[in-house]
Amino acid sequence: MTESLSRRHFLHAAGAGAASVWIPRTVHGYTEAEVRKMAFNERVEEGISKWDLDTPCLVVDLDRLEGNLDHMQTTLAGNGVASRPHAKTHKCPAIARLQMATGSVGICTAKISEAEVMFEHGIEQILMTTVNVTPRKIRRAMHLKKWCAGFIQAVDTAANARDLSAAAAEAGVVADIVVDVDPGGHRSGITAGAPALELAQLVDTLPGLRLRGMLCYDGGAQHVMGFAERRTRALSSLEDAAETHVQMQRAGLDNGIFSGGGTGTYNIDHETPGLTDVQVGSYVFMDAQYLSIGGADNPDAYDDFEPALTVMTTVLNAQYEGRATTDAGAKANTINKPWPIIAGETDITYTSGSDEYGSIRYGANASRTYAVGDKLELIVSHCDPVVNLYDQMYGVRGDTVEVIWPVAGRGKSV
Amino acid sequence: MTESLSRRHFLHAAGAGAASVWIPRTVHGYTEAEVRKMAFNERVEEGISKWDLDTPCLVVDLDRLEGNLDHMQTTLAGNGVASRPHAKTHKCPAIARLQMATGSVGICTAKISEAEVMFEHGIEQILMTTVNVTPRKIRRAMHLKKWCAGFIQAVDTAANARDLSAAAAEAGVVADIVVDVDPGGHRSGITAGAPALELAQLVDTLPGLRLRGMLCYDGGAQHVMGFAERRTRALSSLEDAAETHVQMQRAGLDNGIFSGGGTGTYNIDHETPGLTDVQVGSYVFMDAQYLSIGGADNPDAYDDFEPALTVMTTVLNAQYEGRATTDAGAKANTINKPWPIIAGETDITYTSGSDEYGSIRYGANASRTYAVGDKLELIVSHCDPVVNLYDQMYGVRGDTVEVIWPVAGRGKSV
Repeated sequence: MTESLSRRHFLHAAGAGAASVWIPRTVHGYTEAEVRKMAFNERVEEGISKWDLDTPCLVVDLDRLEGNLDHMQTTLAGNGVASRPHAKTHKCPAIARLQMATGSVGICTAKISEAEVMFEHGIEQILMTTVNVTPRKIRRAMHLKKWCAGFIQAVDTAANARDLSAAAAEAGVVADIVVDVDPGGHRSGITAGAPALELAQLVDTLPGLRLRGMLCYDGGAQHVMGFAERRTRALSSLEDAAETHVQMQRAGLDNGIFSGGGTGTYNIDHETPGLTDVQVGSYVFMDAQYLSIGGADNPDAYDDFEPALTVMTTVLNAQYEGRATTDAGAKANTINKPWPIIAGETDITYTSGSDEYGSIRYGANASRTYAVGDKLELIVSHCDPVVNLYDQMYGVRGDTVEVIWPVAGRGKSV
Repeated sequence: MTESLSRRHFLHAAGAGAASVWIPRTVHGYTEAEVRKMAFNERVEEGISKWDLDTPCLVVDLDRLEGNLDHMQTTLAGNGVASRPHAKTHKCPAIARLQMATGSVGICTAKISEAEVMFEHGIEQILMTTVNVTPRKIRRAMHLKKWCAGFIQAVDTAANARDLSAAAAEAGVVADIVVDVDPGGHRSGITAGAPALELAQLVDTLPGLRLRGMLCYDGGAQHVMGFAERRTRALSSLEDAAETHVQMQRAGLDNGIFSGGGTGTYNIDHETPGLTDVQVGSYVFMDAQYLSIGGADNPDAYDDFEPALTVMTTVLNAQYEGRATTDAGAKANTINKPWPIIAGETDITYTSGSDEYGSIRYGANASRTYAVGDKLELIVSHCDPVVNLYDQMYGVRGDTVEVIWPVAGRGKSV
């Protein structure tokens, strides 16, 4: 842990303010109306153990979170690239502020509403990686740009570039733009090479826009099993984009940003020539999906980062042979695969296919069995959509709740 | 549409109050703090079309919702059983109030936090179908019972019954209890017959508890394909519970409540002897999962109820052959199967496997293609977890937004 991630700095960066504030209070981060609503809720007392929280609830291990931030920052800095973490993963301004405080050049968001929330909570460097195409959302983006000088948005068609330029002029702003280049998956972005270059040139000439560079994100590369296979895929899918980046430079265009990559390829992305920053997301939390892909040093588990995000759950029924039922089903875990992993146990499987109930099955060599009322901790399946189910996360140091962070971007899918 | 579901009554029941209130206002249902937060959001104007809403967003067709309420109520009344709709589906107090206003005997909730929210929004008859087993949740349940005389909770072990009785005594209340009987799935509940009867007798003798009857819910029966197969499964899985119900009567125990069944078996459940009310949920909205199971009159589609719940989405990318990308992925739709259905179109598939993006693929006979900025409407895959992603739903009459309903129970999984 570096000095920059010391406890004091950590809490300051996360917006907790005075030292006394990190002692959990029910009122922390809530409006008066929300506190009133809690009349029928159990209060969370100072220094409560995570094992005493009502379940299901979302818990983040602060030591592990800090370790993950530190390892990512150290690795990327050593490789000569920056981090521009994606807030779609955590939806949590406190974590975004930690990322900025520890050296990230900005935060990515997937949606305009997510960008608005991040700005309202103190994040001033925001790259929105999805295009805004409707008149209403374009107006929202320009309104945000008025207040947030560091807001940058993606564009992938000439028509959209013209719409953005007109809206910028009407709003009295100049909009910062990156060209979104398709890595070959045809999900978003414009084709690399001539089409992308022409679009960059158009952006450069339109009066309401300021070209800042490009992005190329290959989501499919992130979860390729096996480090060597992942490296091959990641580098080949960005090859054309890298060539486009060179062409932009030759054409005298601003190519200061070349953003791409992610948690699965964070130690590969710097090999793409010209890439400036990595849009890492899941590294802060990790999850069962990433654990399964294997790392550069360990083919069996991707252990570059530590699982920091868990769901606490309680056993509700244990009266039938070989199984137990918990209170954390699909609404607490999603139905992503692989299923959540019970932390610290072996030969016990957990499924969350039912909306309201989780299901435990014991193998022949199960490390334990559970009784009604027992609690267990689940390493989440896929962190992004799981976080999006919760209004808050409990930050714990060891077992003790140290802070409650509102997931202010939860549900901000617009 | 019966008189009881007339427009005036509808709006009154949903808590919209004075007639002018149902003209949508940004401030409707929001706290001052939330309105302040909207500074960076586009305002929703009076009488806006659903096609002009920022996407992804959740829309409920009020005519269809009212029709579904009416058909369910009429059918169950004709069969001599009551409805006790499950709020886990809609999470929306306004809809719960509509259900109560149109004849339901109470509302079910899956979680204590859901029960609290429903009570805080005016629902006074609440049956919580899941057990409370931890000391904290038991205290919450007793605290709720202090204020909400109509709160009934489930129990499925003797130890839990004793814990509840002690907590009730400490809180100075008598807790109303139903015994949860396992239909054979071993997910929740106690075994029918002697074990269930003994538990009912124990509840009857414990000083802090008042026995009210039993529940037996076979979730697995609801989605059995084909009406005849579903009927066989539903009736056989509740056979032992029905016998237990008779035994309770013979033993002189209160068996006034025998709750079970759901949307998939609503026109079957009354054949289970003694069953008093059906815990219908999805009928208010319907979804792609229920549409696929087939009905009594139509083996191809379960069209007893009309799809009323949709997600609006916008096309973001249309520059690649045979496909398009939208803004509604897994965070807007979940990844439940079958995938969402594009309303009104044929031979176009929609998938929401990516967190942030939806994917459209055109078949050879696709009814249309989409351009960037076009909007489309999706019949949701599985309504319960989809609703749980949204903070509000837009109630529309035709295409016009008439009311914005907070999904106050969203995320209340505790």
